[in-house]
Amino acid sequence: MILGRVIGTVVSTRKEPKIEGIKFLLLEKINPETMKGKGDYLVAMDSVGAGLDEIVFYVAGSSARMTATTEGRPADATITAIVDEIDISGKLVYQKDRI
Amino acid sequence: MILGRVIGTVVSTRKEPKIEGIKFLLLEKINPETMKGKGDYLVAMDSVGAGLDEIVFYVAGSSARMTATTEGRPADATITAIVDEIDISGKLVYQKDRI
Amino acid sequence: MILGRVIGTVVSTRKEPKIEGIKFLLLEKINPETMKGKGDYLVAMDSVGAGLDEIVFYVAGSSARMTATTEGRPADATITAIVDEIDISGKLVYQKDRI
Amino acid sequence: MILGRVIGTVVSTRKEPKIEGIKFLLLEKINPETMKGKGDYLVAMDSVGAGLDEIVFYVAGSSARMTATTEGRPADATITAIVDEIDISGKLVYQKDRI
Amino acid sequence: MILGRVIGTVVSTRKEPKIEGIKFLLLEKINPETMKGKGDYLVAMDSVGAGLDEIVFYVAGSSARMTATTEGRPADATITAIVDEIDISGKLVYQKDRI
Repeated sequence: MILGRVIGTVVSTRKEPKIEGIKFLLLEKINPETMKGKGDYLVAMDSVGAGLDEIVFYVAGSSARMTATTEGRPADATITAIVDEIDISGKLVYQKDRI
Repeated sequence: MILGRVIGTVVSTRKEPKIEGIKFLLLEKINPETMKGKGDYLVAMDSVGAGLDEIVFYVAGSSARMTATTEGRPADATITAIVDEIDISGKLVYQKDRI
Repeated sequence: MILGRVIGTVVSTRKEPKIEGIKFLLLEKINPETMKGKGDYLVAMDSVGAGLDEIVFYVAGSSARMTATTEGRPADATITAIVDEIDISGKLVYQKDRI
Repeated sequence: MILGRVIGTVVSTRKEPKIEGIKFLLLEKINPETMKGKGDYLVAMDSVGAGLDEIVFYVAGSSARMTATTEGRPADATITAIVDEIDISGKLVYQKDRI
Repeated sequence: MILGRVIGTVVSTRKEPKIEGIKFLLLEKINPETMKGKGDYLVAMDSVGAGLDEIVFYVAGSSARMTATTEGRPADATITAIVDEIDISGKLVYQKDRI
C-alpha cells in the first residue's frame, strides 16, 4: 500500500455506470521521511470516509475491488485506511491532528 | 485511476479478434496541479464516449475488463470517466468547457 | 496498452514448457509525439504476426493471457495490434509503410 | 519480489474492516549492491513477524493475498520472507545479525 | 517479460510456508542494446534452473504463479526462460557462452 495525502476531489457526470455514486478523491503520494508530497497524483475510490488533508494509504490492483464500497466495480486504487501515526526507527514522525 | 487528456487516436487493421470494433484513444497523463501533460502516453479503450482534448481518468489492470465495452477482452487501460471538475484544497483547478 | 517498435527477437531453448512454440519479440517503447524510442525494452509474446520495425501496441498484466496464442500461458505482455495510423490533435503523425 | 528494510510502522484506527488486526510495516526499498535505502517507501502487511531494521522481501499484486495472514483481504504488498543472506557473484554482501 | 542477468541468490529461513523449498535468485535488469545492468534489482523464483551470470527473462504479476514450480504460491516474478540469443535489427547482440 502507498501513503498519500487527500488533496482534492474529482467530479464526473459522464462515467461508466458501475462507478455511479462513488466518491473520487485526488491523492498526492508522500515521502514518509519528510511527509512532503512527491508531485505524483492519482484518483482513488474511498472505502473509509477520508477527508481533505488527511494522510491515508490506498491499495492498488485487483485488491482495490475487495472492499464493500468497490466490490464488482472497475477500481484500481481504493483508500483502505486513514493514518493516525507513522513511526520511523522508534520516532513518531506523524500524528494525526497534531502535526 | 490516473488522469489524462485525450490527444488522439490509434488505428489498427491487423489486431487480436477480441478487440475488433473497439476505439483506441491516445492519452497523455497530466499533472492535476498544473493541468499540463507529463510526456507519458498510453493507448486506452473507451467505455464512455470520450473525445479529443477531454480530461478523463482511466482504470488499469484487471479492472480494465470490468466495463460493458471491455468485458472478456484483452484490455489493461479503459477510460471510465470524463472529468467535469477537479478541485484541489477547495479551489476549482479545472472545469470542463470553461478552462 | 503501450506503443512500441519491434526491434528484434529473443531465442530460448531452456524455458518453461508452457511457453514452448511461442515467438518472443523484443520491443522498444516509443514516444508517439516523436515516434522515437524511449530506451525502455521488454519481451512480448505475439498474437498478431508482427514483424521487425513495425509499430504495435501490447497489453500487460493478466489480460496478456486473453488471446488465442497466450491463453493459459505465463505471459505478462502480448502484442494485440499492429498499428496503421496514429493521429494526434487531428494530424497524422504516423502511417504504416509511408513514414 | 523486492528487497526492503523495515523502517517503521503505520497505525490506523479508521480503516476497511477486512484489514482489522493486521500489522502495517513501513518498508524502504534497498539496493542490494550497496544495501542502502533508495528513498522509495511502501506499507506492507506482514505474514512472517518481521521486526525493525530487518531486511525482507515482499510480494506485490494479487499474490499479496496468498498468505494465511492476508487471504481474502485487500492487500497489494505482503512480506513473505525475512532475509538471512544475500550473495552477489559468489560474495556474501549481507548476513543477518552480522552486518 | 523483462530481461535480466542472474547476479546472486537470496536465502531466508523465516518465510511464508508456501514458499519453502523455492530457490530465490537475485536479478539485475539489463538494457538489451548494451547488455549492461540497469542498477535495478529484484528477487525471482526460478522455474528453469537458471544459474549465475545467465541472461534470463521473467514474467511478473499473476502469471508468475503459472509454472509447475510456482503454482498456488505467492510469487510475483518467476524466471521462465534462459536466453540463448538476442537479435536486434538483424544483428546478433547476445549469444550464450560466446559473449
